[in-house]
Amino acid sequence: MSTLPAVFARHQAEIDAEIRSVLDERASPLYDMMRYHFGWADEHGRPQCSPNGKAVRPTLCLLSCRSLGGDHRRALPAAAAVELVHNYSLIHDDIQDDDRERRHRPTVWSVWGKPQAINAGTGMRMLASTALRRLNLPFAQRSRIQCLVDEATISLIEGQYLDILYESRFDITVSDYIDMVAGKTAALFACALEVGAEIATDDASTVKAFHDFGWNLGMAFQTRDDILGIWGTERETGKPSCNDIMRRKKTLPVVYALGMAEGQQRAELLKCYSASSLDESAVKRVVDILESMDALAEAQRLTTSYIERAEGAIAGLSLDSDAERELEEVTRFLGTRRF
Amino acid sequence: MSTLPAVFARHQAEIDAEIRSVLDERASPLYDMMRYHFGWADEHGRPQCSPNGKAVRPTLCLLSCRSLGGDHRRALPAAAAVELVHNYSLIHDDIQDDDRERRHRPTVWSVWGKPQAINAGTGMRMLASTALRRLNLPFAQRSRIQCLVDEATISLIEGQYLDILYESRFDITVSDYIDMVAGKTAALFACALEVGAEIATDDASTVKAFHDFGWNLGMAFQTRDDILGIWGTERETGKPSCNDIMRRKKTLPVVYALGMAEGQQRAELLKCYSASSLDESAVKRVVDILESMDALAEAQRLTTSYIERAEGAIAGLSLDSDAERELEEVTRFLGTRRF
Repeated sequence: MSTLPAVFARHQAEIDAEIRSVLDERASPLYDMMRYHFGWADEHGRPQCSPNGKAVRPTLCLLSCRSLGGDHRRALPAAAAVELVHNYSLIHDDIQDDDRERRHRPTVWSVWGKPQAINAGTGMRMLASTALRRLNLPFAQRSRIQCLVDEATISLIEGQYLDILYESRFDITVSDYIDMVAGKTAALFACALEVGAEIATDDASTVKAFHDFGWNLGMAFQTRDDILGIWGTERETGKPSCNDIMRRKKTLPVVYALGMAEGQQRAELLKCYSASSLDESAVKRVVDILESMDALAEAQRLTTSYIERAEGAIAGLSLDSDAERELEEVTRFLGTRRF
Repeated sequence: MSTLPAVFARHQAEIDAEIRSVLDERASPLYDMMRYHFGWADEHGRPQCSPNGKAVRPTLCLLSCRSLGGDHRRALPAAAAVELVHNYSLIHDDIQDDDRERRHRPTVWSVWGKPQAINAGTGMRMLASTALRRLNLPFAQRSRIQCLVDEATISLIEGQYLDILYESRFDITVSDYIDMVAGKTAALFACALEVGAEIATDDASTVKAFHDFGWNLGMAFQTRDDILGIWGTERETGKPSCNDIMRRKKTLPVVYALGMAEGQQRAELLKCYSASSLDESAVKRVVDILESMDALAEAQRLTTSYIERAEGAIAGLSLDSDAERELEEVTRFLGTRRF
């Protein structure tokens, strides 16, 4: 399936409005960098409307609340917080990876420099905490949600730490890879779904089911992302084909291939991944090796198995039928998306 | 006065133990970078005992709690949180300023690289939030304290944003400087004192008095720091003399001089502060100009006036006499310290 489920468009305006209002409580030009990042302002702070991300995580947060019969508007501050955490990590990622472009625009650091972009990122993470103060919930419940968002951020940073550490290592196993992605991606997905459920119900086993649903969905999201990072087209993903290979990222197909390759193929892979830069023919050679080892199919098999585990986590729960249908649609989309 | 008041040594071990135990709850090698930063581990994670900072902010937090008759041990998680916020900002500052050394050791980024040091800094800020979860207080009170620490961090980031912005500007007034320092330094001092008071009393006007005390103390701390950044000796401060001039920081004496200088002196200052690097004779020339304009005395006058306002903020409160004496001693020390 490769069309974006309608539920994304349905909630986008509310999520944007919540985040904008969190930013608008503040006066410093520091926040102009954040508005720029979200595509709401140009580099001079003038209003603009650039295409934003899909807002997958906050949409899932609202959907989990709705599917349990909750009013999704009560979950908006939490959805905003989750999206602020994700986007703070993008601002810092771009600095760490030296990426000059995101969504066809210069990244925050390439406009304002790395020192200010560090402030923009950490500042955005702090706004996630201020967003949670808007939750109209009893202190104890709000405190549990703050704890979930804080712990998801810590997991994300631990995952990002591993991601950077792995850049200089060639002995990364699929199990190491899973540890990294569990932190970098799955923790925040799990948090998004768990928090949405927590706002709608006080049944601990249901909340746990949504946590597991989100965790597996996050794993599937990342493994599918790894596939698109090599075999996606620039027209569909907005990133150059084979981008992750040029950047020599230890994504799933590569980790799988490094674990399986022997002899000449292994020597070639190691040579490419140790070089200081890769030319077009080397990139093509890496892709050929990955394909000869069936790394695409293997990565898709893992994606599908996470999708199935996600579906299994909430199977049997009695959910609101509209929201359930939308959750199913989003789940299928995330496992097969082309962008 | 230039000896360190005994109260610092008295509380150091408890503060360290609290922070270490917050770090020890976590397993990732990410936290080894933080232990290294605090001087508790070398770059391989092996135990070490390097000289640490003075822990001014957490000590003040504990003192404000004690001075209101509170048990300072109840405030330890908050004191740890304040120190974690301060130290996260040092890790990011060192990246932003490209500083290779701190306390005679390589900075975190010069050991692990800037991408990982960004993770160490943001991760440390997150641990400040987890430390606050250790506070054994009713949810509503803990929530107020979380809010104070979050807002102080946001102010700190806004101040750091201005600090970097000012690097490329020459029209900074003393009032601009005060805005910057209010965010960069005074907000966290105010938070440290306010939080300590909040734990000991529910009297809002007393808590507010400690906020004001801390704010003025923070301003004095920074203006005195600016004096030491030019006229301090390496033996006493651990930093090269005139360090802030070599780095062309817009510290108080320089901002004052840029505002007052005319003709030839102004032209010389602007030339030095626009150059890409300063040699020894240019640094000496800047110091000569600052001294001819009495910038040292002017900066000390401002320091002393903040110290007096700090003392005034809590004058008239009925405080525990031991803690009050120690607060007075620390206050005098901060206004006249040579290190």
